[in-house]
This record gives sequence, C-alpha cells and structure tokens, in this order.
Amino acid sequence: MLPAPYRQLRERARELSFLQSTTALLYWDQQTFMPPQAMTFRAEQLSYFSGQAHRLFTAPEVGDWIAACEDAGMASDPGDADAAANVRGWRHDYDRATKLPAGLVEEYERAKVIANTAWAEARERSDFAHFAPHLEKVFGLTRRLADLWGYEADPYDALLEGFEPGARAAELDTLFATLRPAVVELLGPAAERSARVPADLLAGHYPEAQPAAFNREVAGAFGFDFAAGRINTTTHPFCNGLAPGDCRLTTRYDEGNFLVSLYGVLHEAGHGMYEQGLRREAFGTPAGMYVSLGIHESQSRLWENQVGRAREFWEHWLPRAVHYFPGLATRTPEEMFAAVNRVHPSFIRVEADQVTYDLHVILRFGLERRILAGELAIRDVPAAWNEEFEAMFGLKVPDDAHGCLQDIHWSEGLIGYFPTYTLGNLAAAQLYRRALADVPGLPGELAAGRYGGLLGWLREKIHAPGRRLASGELIAAATGEPTRVEHYLAGLREKFLE
Amino acid sequence: MLPAPYRQLRERARELSFLQSTTALLYWDQQTFMPPQAMTFRAEQLSYFSGQAHRLFTAPEVGDWIAACEDAGMASDPGDADAAANVRGWRHDYDRATKLPAGLVEEYERAKVIANTAWAEARERSDFAHFAPHLEKVFGLTRRLADLWGYEADPYDALLEGFEPGARAAELDTLFATLRPAVVELLGPAAERSARVPADLLAGHYPEAQPAAFNREVAGAFGFDFAAGRINTTTHPFCNGLAPGDCRLTTRYDEGNFLVSLYGVLHEAGHGMYEQGLRREAFGTPAGMYVSLGIHESQSRLWENQVGRAREFWEHWLPRAVHYFPGLATRTPEEMFAAVNRVHPSFIRVEADQVTYDLHVILRFGLERRILAGELAIRDVPAAWNEEFEAMFGLKVPDDAHGCLQDIHWSEGLIGYFPTYTLGNLAAAQLYRRALADVPGLPGELAAGRYGGLLGWLREKIHAPGRRLASGELIAAATGEPTRVEHYLAGLREKFLE
Repeated sequence: MLPAPYRQLRERARELSFLQSTTALLYWDQQTFMPPQAMTFRAEQLSYFSGQAHRLFTAPEVGDWIAACEDAGMASDPGDADAAANVRGWRHDYDRATKLPAGLVEEYERAKVIANTAWAEARERSDFAHFAPHLEKVFGLTRRLADLWGYEADPYDALLEGFEPGARAAELDTLFATLRPAVVELLGPAAERSARVPADLLAGHYPEAQPAAFNREVAGAFGFDFAAGRINTTTHPFCNGLAPGDCRLTTRYDEGNFLVSLYGVLHEAGHGMYEQGLRREAFGTPAGMYVSLGIHESQSRLWENQVGRAREFWEHWLPRAVHYFPGLATRTPEEMFAAVNRVHPSFIRVEADQVTYDLHVILRFGLERRILAGELAIRDVPAAWNEEFEAMFGLKVPDDAHGCLQDIHWSEGLIGYFPTYTLGNLAAAQLYRRALADVPGLPGELAAGRYGGLLGWLREKIHAPGRRLASGELIAAATGEPTRVEHYLAGLREKFLE
Repeated sequence: MLPAPYRQLRERARELSFLQSTTALLYWDQQTFMPPQAMTFRAEQLSYFSGQAHRLFTAPEVGDWIAACEDAGMASDPGDADAAANVRGWRHDYDRATKLPAGLVEEYERAKVIANTAWAEARERSDFAHFAPHLEKVFGLTRRLADLWGYEADPYDALLEGFEPGARAAELDTLFATLRPAVVELLGPAAERSARVPADLLAGHYPEAQPAAFNREVAGAFGFDFAAGRINTTTHPFCNGLAPGDCRLTTRYDEGNFLVSLYGVLHEAGHGMYEQGLRREAFGTPAGMYVSLGIHESQSRLWENQVGRAREFWEHWLPRAVHYFPGLATRTPEEMFAAVNRVHPSFIRVEADQVTYDLHVILRFGLERRILAGELAIRDVPAAWNEEFEAMFGLKVPDDAHGCLQDIHWSEGLIGYFPTYTLGNLAAAQLYRRALADVPGLPGELAAGRYGGLLGWLREKIHAPGRRLASGELIAAATGEPTRVEHYLAGLREKFLE
C-alpha cells in the first residue's frame, strides 16, 4: 500500500491528465477542423483549462504531498522506480511552476500573444523594427523568469531546464565547438557532390491521395500503430500524444514534391512511436511522460534521417513508391538515395538538409546566449545574425525574413529550445549505431523493410522508462557513453562523402 | 448593475459552458476521428467532465443564488427578458438535477450502459428475452425518477418535462387522437399513388465527393453558415452546437442513393441553423439555449420536409443536381418530387416516409405510458407492439429486430422522448404555413431558391428567443395559436393526395 500523500498526488495527476488531454484535443481540433468563427470562444476555453490545470498543480497541498513523499524517502526508492521518478518529476515541475509570481506569468503570456502577432506581421514585411520592441520585451521577461527559476553558472541553464532537464549551456558549448568546424569542413565537398543530382529529379504531380497512402504504408511498417493514432492535414505539422491509445500526427502535402509529406510523416511518426511506447498505465505521471525535447527529437530524427534517408530504405521501398507514383519507374535506389540527401546551403532552417541543419541551430544558440547575457542589444540582432550566417554558410542574407525573422520560436518565448534539435540529431545517430551493434541481424532486417527489432530496442531503452532517468542518464544507459558528437559526424561523413 | 447573485450565476454558467462545450467536442471527436484504442481513456474523461459539471451546477450556493434572484423578483422581470428566462431556466434545471439522490443517478447511469450493450446484442440476434431484464431495470428506475421529480396527473409528464418542458401527456393524447385516424385514412390512397413511382427511379452510383458537394451547396443556400460550422461523416448522423460559431453536422453516405445524405444533411442543417441562430452573447445561459427537443425537431423537419421535399425545391434544384449527377439529366422535377415522397409502410421508424412516420411515434408513446403505469409487463411488450403495429400499418412484424428492438432510445433511458418527433412535425407545418402568410413574396423566393426571408422569420420568431418563452408559448406567439394537428394534416393531404 503506497502512502496517502502519494495516492493523493496520483489522484491529482489523474485529474490533471483529463485537463491536459482535453487541452491537447482542443488544440488539435483548432488546427484541423474548427470553423473559423469558433476562435474567440476556443481561446477562452483553452485559457480556462490551462488556468484550471495550473491552479490544481500549484496548490499548496500538492507541495505538502510532495514533501511528505520526499520525507518518506520515496524520491530515491530503488524498490519502486516509478514512484521515485514521479516524486522527483513532480518536485521538478512544482518548483518551476511555483517560483513565478502569478502576475509575471500573466504578463509573460500576454506579451507572447502580442509578440506573436507582431512577429507574423514583421516577417510578412521583413520589417525587423516592427518586431524589435516585442522581442525586447519577451527576452527581458524571459531573463526575469530565468533569474526566478535560478541557476548556478549561466541564466541559459534555467531556460534549458524547461526543455532539456539537466542539460547545461557549458556542455552544449563543448559539443558545438567540435560539431561546428567539422560540419563546415564537410559542407563544401558534400554540396559539391550534391550538385551532380538534378534538383528536379523527382519533380512530378503528386495529388494528396497517393502520397497519403504511401506515407501511411511506410509509417505503419516502421511501427506507428494506426489503431492508437491517426494522421490529418495541417499547415504546420505536429505530433500530439493526446491520451493512452491516441496519438495524432499531422502533415502537409506539396503536390509537386511527395518527399515533403513523406519525410514529414516519418519524422512525426518517430515522435508518435515514442508517445505510443510510453507506458499507458503511467499516463499523466512523470513515469509515463517523455523525458525531454531532445530525446523526443532523437526519435523523430532517427526514423526520418537514420532509417528513412538510408540507402537501404530506398532499396526496399522504391518498388512500393513506384506502385503509388508510376513516374518513378525509371529511377534507381541510388538516385533516390542521392535525391533525398541533397546538400545545399540555404537560408531557412526548416528547409535545411541534414548537413547544414545544425549550423542553423548553433547560430541561434549563440545569439540567444549573448542577448540573455546583455552582450547583444536587440537592435543589433539582424547584423549579428547576418554576419554569423555568412561566416558559417558563405551566403549573404538578403533580408530579415530570410534571417532573424524566420522562426516563430522567440515570439512564443521558446528561448533555450533550439539546442534540443541538435541534441536530438546527436542522440539519434548514437542510438542508431548502438542498436545496430546490439540487435542481432538488424542490418538485414532493415534491408528487408522489417523494423520491429529496432523499434523493440527503442521501446525498451528509451520509450518505456519515461522520466525514470534524466535524458543524459538515459543516453548513457542505452549507449554506454554520454551524448557525443563523433557518432553523428561519422554518420554524416559516411553518407555524404563516401 | 445586475445583483451579485445573478452575476455569480452568470460566472458559473460560463464555467459550465466551457465544460459542456468540451464534452460536446469529446463526443464529436469520438464519433468522427478518435482512434479505437483511445476509447477507455475517453470514457473516463467524459465521465470526469460530466461529474464536474454536475457538481458545479448542483452546488448549494447555486440554489442560494437562484433563490436570491427570485426573491428580487427577477424571474418575472418584464424589463429584462433574458435575466427572467435565465432565472426561470436555472430554477427548472436545478430542481430537476438536485431532486435525485447521487446514488440513484449513478445506479441509473450504470444500468443504461449495461442495457445499451445488451440491447445491441439482442437486436443483432432479434432476442428480446436477452434485453428484457435490462429494459425492466431501466423502466423501473425511470419510474422512480419520475416519482422523485414529481408530477400532477401522470408520471409520464415528469419525463416529458426533461425533453419538452411544459408538455403534458393528456395534451398529447388529444393531439394523437386526431392525428392517428387521419393518417391511417391517408395512408392507403397515398401508398397506392406512390406505387406508380418505381422504387429504383434514382438508382445509380454516387461516390461521396459529388453528394457531399451538392449537399453543401444546398445547405449553404438554405443558410447554414460554413464559417461557423462544418459537416463530417459518421455512422449515426447528428448535429452538435459545440460553441458560439461552431456547429458541427454529420451525415452518412449511401453510394447507391444520394437522397440518404441529401435529406440527412438538410435535416441536420435545420437543427444547425437553429443552433447558429441562438444569440451568441447568451451562449451557455437559458436565454441562449434551444427551448425544447420538439422545437429543435421542428426546425430540422421544416427544412427537410416542408422546404426540401416540396415540388418547387426540385423545380429549382434539379439543374444543379444534374450538374453533380449527370445520370439525372432525363428526370423531370415532377419525377424528383414523386421519388422523394414515396409512401410505403415499413417496419423501421428511421426509414419511414413522411406519412407513416408519426404512427411509429404514436405506437411507442402508447406502450411507454402503459409500461410506466404498470399496465403492461415488459415480457408482454413484443406481443403488444406487434398487435398495435398490425392495427396501424396492416403489416405483420416478422421479428423483434424489426419491432420493439429496433430503437436505441429505451436502452439509453430516453423514455418520454419519442413524442418530440411528432411535436416537431406538427410545429414545422404550422410554422411554415404561418411564414408563408407572414413574409411578403415568400412563395416566389422559395421557387427561386432564395431562403433568406424564411430563415430571417425563423431567426426572429424561434431562434433568437432561446428559452425566453416555453415551447408552447413560442409556437403560440409565432403562429397565433397553440400547436394543432390541422396544419400538418392539410399539408400531408395537399402533398400526397392532390
């Protein structure tokens, strides 16, 4: 029999899971089917539920229950790993949620809504000055949050903690110091090779029905369970683990390029299989939640890039692709492999290839830290961006819409978030290599289009633990070493230079 | 400045509207897109929200606030019709909700869930004995609810009050005593005429896209606002007014018969236009709610049958139908009119034509009253059903699946509900006739496919008032007389005999 305070926390978590699952459905519906005139009420409804959830979780009794569990030694009880994960997770989240005064939270929420609108207008007109005062406000408030949350070495750590608990800016510095020059060195030769692949090699007309069927077939073969999930269409693709047995992916279709939705779906299906691999009975508690955004991203990148952009993927899947897209009949697997791995430096992060992607992240990480440290004024962001971009990519940024105004993140207060994309890339490569070594016969299985062995390994090592281990511990436990750059670089070199 | 208790009631109603709108979305999603494995959690989530809503509405302070408003004379304040409607509506709903002990409500909910499963199995096998003990339980509990709610003359009145506030079984007796023989008299000649129309006159292949586009065009022309609503596909069609600016219709398609989804959509769009015509600023309060199920049904039947099955409908719409269904090119408007008005007695209510429909209702009403009064034992229901059916329709019921097991209603505790279908038919005819007299040039507008005049009249007379008037008062105010059978019969005779 578990102690009463722990049972009360479980009960509260259950109630919160109903509210949070509902918020997720309201959001999904808003992006997919909601009629336009429903927006006003929907916004109030969402605000009501998030207020209710905040109130229920930050209530004083919750703090008392957590403290009672800690006093009983549950936070480090080796006999009940889930209870320990839950008590530690609740403590982490409770402290972050209660350290901020309500007035500041409201001011921050309002500032983000206004900043978001201003950002959309500014990007539309490529007019940084229009966004600057809002960006100043958001960064200023974010810095205040960081100070209230607290940190040891670097205010950036307090922000990272919200997306990648346990990660530290100094460690990212170390990783990126190795990654950046290696990628820059790789970029020239890789782009030169890619120049031999015609950009329009796969051009054609791909009306939605055929890509949708092909994507579904591949995602299903990977292991995404359509009895416990689905795919819809939205402008901005996302994955939402709504509830046990209910994971919703979305994608968008480009009628001229079936790769857009294919790799979009494989990416989101990677996220989705993580959500589907969390233990259902622990839903709504830390033991049944994803551990960090970096680990979440490692799953999407692993299936999209390590599996989906591999040579053997197209060796297996080209005949099925031809079934849906007869125009591909004259293509070879080698051509498909080359076409889906074209390296071509460009201005927009979300369109970046696998080689240049992390440079986009490193650039943002550097600017965010300088702004937060007070070393870079908001008005100087465009110049700093453009200078740094040219140093990395050798390209002159034509306007701010193609530069510092391109991402929605800052306007939404997502500062300290970008590094999780690169952490995901690194972890994906490291996990994939380890799985190849650990799972007997895996290369043969993958070549034959059988993915159960790989998914089973990820289920055990990454999905089922939930938040039992911190993300760094999880990678170390799964691969025998901390997150390193070398595996990722080795993979890039192998794919793009050999 | 409205008094404090009233403002507190408004605030509580606002909170309830968030919960109820959410429950409606959860239900809509469950019927449309929810993955199968999500069912268990969804059931718990729905139960949580309905429990929360019940708790919030039945709290003692709500009773105090209502009493304070009544003491202040607000329930009959001629100067604020909305406030008066709200205080009266809250009193009505509060008393019904608080008169039942919680234990009985839970027992009833459980009994219905079990009865519902048993009913589905019983209908599948046409095995009444399998359903009988559950039906006994549901009717027994329903009778207890009626006694707790209270009534003057007839326990049936206490049930009617939940669906058609203010209606009385004795009044229905009077209406049905006129309606039944008149319809039976009409049936023979109408069916004989219809026998000249081949049943397969419109047979063809109608894949979903074409009917969907045609239905949407007609529903839009009627006045259903697609910026504030939408249509999806479900097994059992419904209309759900989720929120201000958000009304969702569903339909189902029969590839061999486009009329199934067309008239289904026109019916649901009638419901939907009522929801869209409620005043948005009063959403979640009685003044912004539909007044009764009979009035709701009057709107769906008016647009489906009075407008949609009229001769002039096809005179106007046949060319557009031919645009979507070229196979109709050789049909005449007169043939379309005849085909959509075939009279053919049959066993299943939901497939019934306009003439026989009410006989199905009258049969159920009679049996429900006899069971509740203890005059008919559950084990004798099949025999009583079959005997009565033969007396009305001249047909022998082949098995209980085509007889007393066909409807889901009783297993869901919807006892006292069926009469609202016929009240809807009567009111639809009476309102339609009155609108033709009231709105200058309306016949010409309808012949030209312009529906704004009719919709505007309904908006003013029926939709905008919400629950300011009871349903009987509303009909009297709109048409100058109480609900009568004569207008409906005159319409049937005109359509089916002339």
